Amino acid sequence: MKAEILTIGDEILIGQITNTNSVWIAQQLNQIGIKVVHMASVADDKEEIIAAFNQAKTRADYVFITGGLGPTKDDITKKTFAEFFNTELVMDEEVLNDVSSFFLKRDKIVSEINKNQALVPSGCTVIRNPNGTAPGMWFKKDNTVFISMPGVPYEMKAMITDCILPKIKKENNLPVIYHKTVLTQGIGESALAEMIEDWENNLSLKNIKLAYLPQPGIVRLRLSSSGNDANELASRVEAEIEKLVPIIKKFIYGYELYGEETPKLESIIADILTKKNKSLALAESCTGGFIASLFTALPGVSAVFRGALVPYHNDLKKELLNVADEILVNNGAVSRACVEAMAKNVRLKFNSDYGLAISGIAGPSGGTPEKPVGLVWIAVADKEKCLALKFMFGDNRQRNILMTSHTALNLLRKFILKEETIVS
Amino acid sequence: MKAEILTIGDEILIGQITNTNSVWIAQQLNQIGIKVVHMASVADDKEEIIAAFNQAKTRADYVFITGGLGPTKDDITKKTFAEFFNTELVMDEEVLNDVSSFFLKRDKIVSEINKNQALVPSGCTVIRNPNGTAPGMWFKKDNTVFISMPGVPYEMKAMITDCILPKIKKENNLPVIYHKTVLTQGIGESALAEMIEDWENNLSLKNIKLAYLPQPGIVRLRLSSSGNDANELASRVEAEIEKLVPIIKKFIYGYELYGEETPKLESIIADILTKKNKSLALAESCTGGFIASLFTALPGVSAVFRGALVPYHNDLKKELLNVADEILVNNGAVSRACVEAMAKNVRLKFNSDYGLAISGIAGPSGGTPEKPVGLVWIAVADKEKCLALKFMFGDNRQRNILMTSHTALNLLRKFILKEETIVS
Repeated sequence: MKAEILTIGDEILIGQITNTNSVWIAQQLNQIGIKVVHMASVADDKEEIIAAFNQAKTRADYVFITGGLGPTKDDITKKTFAEFFNTELVMDEEVLNDVSSFFLKRDKIVSEINKNQALVPSGCTVIRNPNGTAPGMWFKKDNTVFISMPGVPYEMKAMITDCILPKIKKENNLPVIYHKTVLTQGIGESALAEMIEDWENNLSLKNIKLAYLPQPGIVRLRLSSSGNDANELASRVEAEIEKLVPIIKKFIYGYELYGEETPKLESIIADILTKKNKSLALAESCTGGFIASLFTALPGVSAVFRGALVPYHNDLKKELLNVADEILVNNGAVSRACVEAMAKNVRLKFNSDYGLAISGIAGPSGGTPEKPVGLVWIAVADKEKCLALKFMFGDNRQRNILMTSHTALNLLRKFILKEETIVS
Repeated sequence: MKAEILTIGDEILIGQITNTNSVWIAQQLNQIGIKVVHMASVADDKEEIIAAFNQAKTRADYVFITGGLGPTKDDITKKTFAEFFNTELVMDEEVLNDVSSFFLKRDKIVSEINKNQALVPSGCTVIRNPNGTAPGMWFKKDNTVFISMPGVPYEMKAMITDCILPKIKKENNLPVIYHKTVLTQGIGESALAEMIEDWENNLSLKNIKLAYLPQPGIVRLRLSSSGNDANELASRVEAEIEKLVPIIKKFIYGYELYGEETPKLESIIADILTKKNKSLALAESCTGGFIASLFTALPGVSAVFRGALVPYHNDLKKELLNVADEILVNNGAVSRACVEAMAKNVRLKFNSDYGLAISGIAGPSGGTPEKPVGLVWIAVADKEKCLALKFMFGDNRQRNILMTSHTALNLLRKFILKEETIVS
């Protein structure tokens, strides 16, 4: 089973936006054993789109198309679809209803332009869009299925996950693929590769493929194997993971099973806190609210997350978090003493069970020879104790914020679980 | 002059890495007036690569190829090049010299595998790589030029900037392209389209293309035109923008010139605050630290950003922000009275000139018939006054956080600038 991913939009070709939709779609297809053989991006231009359709038809069983479905005039995709499939645009009552409810819910009236969102090529199967107004469309021409979706990432993603993948799985007898991903934090990709080299060399004998998926502070290791017997595949992969765990135990913070979302460190922590009926507060200086925003992106997190303080200025560390003047003067804001005081006091101020505090120099400026850019102190406190650790990251501000956040979250997780390997 | 960008590599097709090289190359080509008509990604597979070359030849004058030149994969890619150009691989002495010096500089000996990096198809023009070991290659077949480069971004970028673009400019008399983008907040894509319909209809007469680039709460309008005279193009586009401004003035928060980064609302605000020597503090409830993280992502923002409080729990709105008990009991946390108190008090607590406060129901749960999911109150305060506005967004948590943040930032911007159209 082969797929092609086609992106329509001038904004891609002039380099105005990065094509992240194709990456995500490729990941989803890969996981269910559909091979992506080609990706292409073309302009909002009828001839280019039709030429791309004709080429895709020779290569792929499924063509995933994103973009070109907005209500405005730069979007000619639907008219082109109708022409390619020798059909005409008709009003779909179900979609018209969806579009009307979408605006009604937001106290708005449906304009004529928006009513046109309900025009679809006659004969196509409509894929409803619960998150927006442009419907998806599913057509078959000869032996190739064309699936058109809006380019807005979360609208497209919901359609693929909830409707398109189940439909494809139902229509095909796909080989069974088993994926399991080991989530690690606190070790870089190449150090990890050296550490597990012998183990990795044996994987091919077991017909298991390994992929390294790095992001700042985190490396995911995905093991995949395909065959016919789901149980046999699972036990084969699990047996290898059992051998891997002792080698890199202190870096593992979780696992991701195929078909499930990657567990996020903040979700894992929120789950642990919920089970223990404990709460958390944050004092974020150099991460500046980023960790708070990760927690508050989780629905229902208010049960365990009390809140956060971002005392970006040093005088606020003193005034709002009671960090002693002498600490700020003698040790400085980026120091063990300061971050310990922040963690202990944010706990008390916010009346939470745990306090997590961060202070560092994110860069690009603000470094000194003793305290260079990339230096970060992280502390965690509960009622009884407080643990502070020092880290040295790089010189890229955005990357330092991400590295610090992932490191702090994993430290907090280990602290709550009382893991012995906390100092790694 | 037309170009195609072709990426070779399995890692793209399985969704392991995001293709950022293509975006960057497209930007560079656009700036010198070369139109990118197609982008494609294919696997490390001889047949796929040759098919892609043949298709590119029908569409483009220049084909930019990245990837497939690593020391493990170069066997197939370079052999494929040689086959496509009916030639054979020969050792290039200059490249061999470059490769040897590269390793010598790093106190390493050149391995046999690395010596093979100096094999290039006979008859191609070598593009030297000062930052790595794989050389670039420039071939011409019929009327199309094929340019092959390594996939490592900084190696590829140096080759394009220092060698390839100057060579292309020298060979051609290129047309000029002018882009300018108008940044709007507070109006949806379709409402905007209706509002500017008459103006938009006249654009084609002026040989100007318009594109709508939406994201939650923000729509960017890009005007593009190409020709021979840079000054004439600029004044033609600027003349149309002058006509557009009065129609949608209250939604415009900035402009983006091509080749420059899109100005972010938070950067615009930080710049205004710097000029006015004023400071800001945030009280974020439903956005949960997200706006703080936007500000603290900006280097040097500590000059104007004092910090933020995320009083996620209602008792903290009372305890840490002095919101009166009767407000929380009678009006609730999502109310004008509460958000006004938050904005005023965060200003005082953090000793800042401006206070921005947000309280809302991000969803998916927590809504009531009177206060449904998507209801958000935003307030801005300075020493003299406080302004609070109510908004109704949708039912997607992540999108609500983004919409709220962009709306709050623009409200703050208008408030600081004392814009009269603040209530939109």
